[in-house]
Amino acid sequence: MPPWRELSGQGWVTAEYEMLPASTRNRRDRTRNKVDGRTHEIQRLIARSLRAAVNMERLGAHTIYLDCDVLQADGGTRTAAITGAYVALCDALDAGEERGLWGNDVRVAAVAAVSVGVVGGQILLDLDYVEDSGAEVDANVVMTDFGEWIEVQATGEQTTFSPDQMTQMLELARVGCQGLFQIQSAALAGAIPRG
Amino acid sequence: MPPWRELSGQGWVTAEYEMLPASTRNRRDRTRNKVDGRTHEIQRLIARSLRAAVNMERLGAHTIYLDCDVLQADGGTRTAAITGAYVALCDALDAGEERGLWGNDVRVAAVAAVSVGVVGGQILLDLDYVEDSGAEVDANVVMTDFGEWIEVQATGEQTTFSPDQMTQMLELARVGCQGLFQIQSAALAGAIPRG
Amino acid sequence: MPPWRELSGQGWVTAEYEMLPASTRNRRDRTRNKVDGRTHEIQRLIARSLRAAVNMERLGAHTIYLDCDVLQADGGTRTAAITGAYVALCDALDAGEERGLWGNDVRVAAVAAVSVGVVGGQILLDLDYVEDSGAEVDANVVMTDFGEWIEVQATGEQTTFSPDQMTQMLELARVGCQGLFQIQSAALAGAIPRG
Amino acid sequence: MPPWRELSGQGWVTAEYEMLPASTRNRRDRTRNKVDGRTHEIQRLIARSLRAAVNMERLGAHTIYLDCDVLQADGGTRTAAITGAYVALCDALDAGEERGLWGNDVRVAAVAAVSVGVVGGQILLDLDYVEDSGAEVDANVVMTDFGEWIEVQATGEQTTFSPDQMTQMLELARVGCQGLFQIQSAALAGAIPRG
Amino acid sequence: MPPWRELSGQGWVTAEYEMLPASTRNRRDRTRNKVDGRTHEIQRLIARSLRAAVNMERLGAHTIYLDCDVLQADGGTRTAAITGAYVALCDALDAGEERGLWGNDVRVAAVAAVSVGVVGGQILLDLDYVEDSGAEVDANVVMTDFGEWIEVQATGEQTTFSPDQMTQMLELARVGCQGLFQIQSAALAGAIPRG
Amino acid sequence: MPPWRELSGQGWVTAEYEMLPASTRNRRDRTRNKVDGRTHEIQRLIARSLRAAVNMERLGAHTIYLDCDVLQADGGTRTAAITGAYVALCDALDAGEERGLWGNDVRVAAVAAVSVGVVGGQILLDLDYVEDSGAEVDANVVMTDFGEWIEVQATGEQTTFSPDQMTQMLELARVGCQGLFQIQSAALAGAIPRG
Repeated sequence: MPPWRELSGQGWVTAEYEMLPASTRNRRDRTRNKVDGRTHEIQRLIARSLRAAVNMERLGAHTIYLDCDVLQADGGTRTAAITGAYVALCDALDAGEERGLWGNDVRVAAVAAVSVGVVGGQILLDLDYVEDSGAEVDANVVMTDFGEWIEVQATGEQTTFSPDQMTQMLELARVGCQGLFQIQSAALAGAIPRG
Repeated sequence: MPPWRELSGQGWVTAEYEMLPASTRNRRDRTRNKVDGRTHEIQRLIARSLRAAVNMERLGAHTIYLDCDVLQADGGTRTAAITGAYVALCDALDAGEERGLWGNDVRVAAVAAVSVGVVGGQILLDLDYVEDSGAEVDANVVMTDFGEWIEVQATGEQTTFSPDQMTQMLELARVGCQGLFQIQSAALAGAIPRG
Repeated sequence: MPPWRELSGQGWVTAEYEMLPASTRNRRDRTRNKVDGRTHEIQRLIARSLRAAVNMERLGAHTIYLDCDVLQADGGTRTAAITGAYVALCDALDAGEERGLWGNDVRVAAVAAVSVGVVGGQILLDLDYVEDSGAEVDANVVMTDFGEWIEVQATGEQTTFSPDQMTQMLELARVGCQGLFQIQSAALAGAIPRG
Repeated sequence: MPPWRELSGQGWVTAEYEMLPASTRNRRDRTRNKVDGRTHEIQRLIARSLRAAVNMERLGAHTIYLDCDVLQADGGTRTAAITGAYVALCDALDAGEERGLWGNDVRVAAVAAVSVGVVGGQILLDLDYVEDSGAEVDANVVMTDFGEWIEVQATGEQTTFSPDQMTQMLELARVGCQGLFQIQSAALAGAIPRG
Repeated sequence: MPPWRELSGQGWVTAEYEMLPASTRNRRDRTRNKVDGRTHEIQRLIARSLRAAVNMERLGAHTIYLDCDVLQADGGTRTAAITGAYVALCDALDAGEERGLWGNDVRVAAVAAVSVGVVGGQILLDLDYVEDSGAEVDANVVMTDFGEWIEVQATGEQTTFSPDQMTQMLELARVGCQGLFQIQSAALAGAIPRG
Repeated sequence: MPPWRELSGQGWVTAEYEMLPASTRNRRDRTRNKVDGRTHEIQRLIARSLRAAVNMERLGAHTIYLDCDVLQADGGTRTAAITGAYVALCDALDAGEERGLWGNDVRVAAVAAVSVGVVGGQILLDLDYVEDSGAEVDANVVMTDFGEWIEVQATGEQTTFSPDQMTQMLELARVGCQGLFQIQSAALAGAIPRG
């Protein structure tokens, strides 16, 4: 938490992200000595995205850590982390509310994220590892449940992309996020096993 | 350069980014012991963007380092770094061509980048430090001179943003990049002093 | 793997151990910058113990990594890691055998480990977190299924211990390990769900 | 010193261990950048062992550092370090007592340590470098002068060991420690030159 | 700033030195992970030299950082850094005086530095890169404008040097520094563009 | 050893320097994580000085490490290290000659070093810790036994120094080094106990 937050009495949401060595098809070396650039980028993205779900003044001078440890990786782990971390954030907010740390109005939006991309000229939703590795364009989109964007990151990995492709990717991401909001609600209602 | 590139005989473009301690209004601590997450993100973005300017097979088994050391910072240093690094890349490609390292067809596109953002409800181009600090939405856009995107990164810093705002930001970024391509051409033609 | 092993054509078994931040009652800071002394000790113990299960010459010039990531911690995580890693080692040996990397005679013993301790003057088996925190003496014992010790580590945490107590702790550990060998067999036979 | 110790007014004893580059037959690389796992293990063992010699409440809110720098290495340097550090600890306790930092009842036990092992099927006391390198079983035992164990660490390096061998190693270690208590007393009485 | 300085109300002058990757003929690797010995030595020399220009009691409890980032390197960068840092120090002292942080009597001497050396048997002033690389003896000398030495560092790189050569090098350095004091004055008077 | 040395078949002499925690009056923190600037400077000085004693071509493609571990510190440890390291270097050269690694003409000069300084206006030789702490000027001088300088480092710690003082310090250092050459010879002849 930046020090001025504490002084101002506002809260903060931060995130850590790591892939277990066994999470990938071929064992991934354990991150012992330094956090690489990709990991930094991802945990900054996760935290930034989830902060949009929270009213920091109502949270008060508390910091919530969202630990995103990837047990099994296939495709968009950063968007899966955001989508899952929202459920964990709701659990944490409920737990804090029960203990009287804050009120029941801290959560201001639901947040979900999905990957889209151009693979073989086709625009695809939620790329798996094989699709992601071969994607010409790769985008990660974070949305609120009232239909606005929190983050749009589109990268031409092997080629550039046109304004039309950009528009189509965003449309497809919108559909994907709407489905994820339903799954998050089911998980929070206990209708889907967690863990 | 990833090892497989060398094996395949393809080239690579990488970038390093650093702000000098005296580049900012208040002295910035020197990066001695570790590269922080923001710096990692920026240099990965710069390198990715400039790679779109180059045909890696024609470059052959060479790596080009683009050093982006910020002497004076105000606003979008990462987009300024991309736009300036393109000029340095052209110089490097010319120098290598003269020495017979590669041919004259390595460069396949011009690349420029600009920041756009929502400040006080207004969509602004090329935010300075004060505007950037108070921006509700902050976007960095990288474009080729044939009008396609290489990278679109839009972040709701203090609020979310609507699809309409996204469209308007991209339109304004396009205008900004077109101006930058002209300035790059003038610099490469020697019409603007460098240095 | 020490370099002389490779030269001699012998195999090696190594281990890594880490507790996830969420594995403990109070969140544990993520091990980012350095591996602390306790972690080093534990992963050296795990690897040493499991090497007793393997004939290195028959394994040939291969290294097996045993990743012990603690998802939920309560009490003797290092002995649980050894006991569980034996099952993973058997899986790995079976997988390598199927792929023709080595024969079916690499495994030469089963290995299990258990904690014993003196708590309130009583000798207890398999201490949980609360018992472990208050233990006067804490011991970790690693045994093979033919009844010999691989490792005996007994530490007077708050007091010293007599030769008689040492004898009783070892007797109790023997009983505990015998139970664990049955559970390992059931797991390997598919009679207990894993994961 | 863990922070709760300071709050509670209790003392602490800690240790550091290092081998000089010239201490070994072949020059050992200087430990510059990191403390390796073996060193961590050893200094934790030394400190733990010597804490058994001290009543922490009577020591009061002081930390004693025991620096164990190995000038000449041959065989059990960790047990030699414990045995020697006890003499240094007595010196430190005397010096503090003279300066009025604590009383003359801080020391509650003498502490000595010795290695035992199985070499060529024989149980040997105080293994030298050659014996230690070839030992089938290697044990380090720390004892108080009233005959109780502080630490028992027995490791099957090349083979496992039976309960009978364990018993015999402990008996031999007891004899060894009794000899060391006499040497420590002579050193503290000034009858042996220190260096 | 060492802590006792702050307690005593005295000031401090410190320096940091770094060569940009592009400052040298062949690109120099960026100093990311550690400051090498040569850099440490140079920044300690710069700071020590400039402290001679300042009355620390009159400076009061302030620390002045002198950032010496080498944009273009050829020959004696450490002596150029000292000579240039004196001008920056004067600017900083003037700025602090205007803001009422200290009085106008903080500066007690001008400081300049120059390299001298023996190249091919000849004593030369202000060696460039080629001369410096082949110098038999290399010396850096720091002087005040009242004619006394602050630092004399003479090193026989490829041969030793006689007392006579030492005398001649110091004489030549004196002449060089006198010229530099005039250039510093002109820069401070605005007669030379800075940049 | 710089890689070009190895290619050219020339030798190299390098040095490491460290003070043991117990070497100083007040315990000195152990250098675990990084080598500080002062240590870097000292070990570079030691190595540079001793290289003047050796003909690198006759040494051939070998590197000699000189470990200077300070067991007891009082005053000029860096000059003591150089003077003592010369004796160790002679031992190493003799040992290598006996093993046929090089001939008996590798050593080309004796090397000794001494500190001189201005303390209370007086020029003193071989400052002890108390003198060194209060010295106005501190110099370290390295000399060969044929009367030439290898290194002259004079620093105005609390004041500047005049050319006359510089001359007098060098004269006194010459006398000091001449005495040290006799002591080194005695040590090499076995007339002084070592260790």
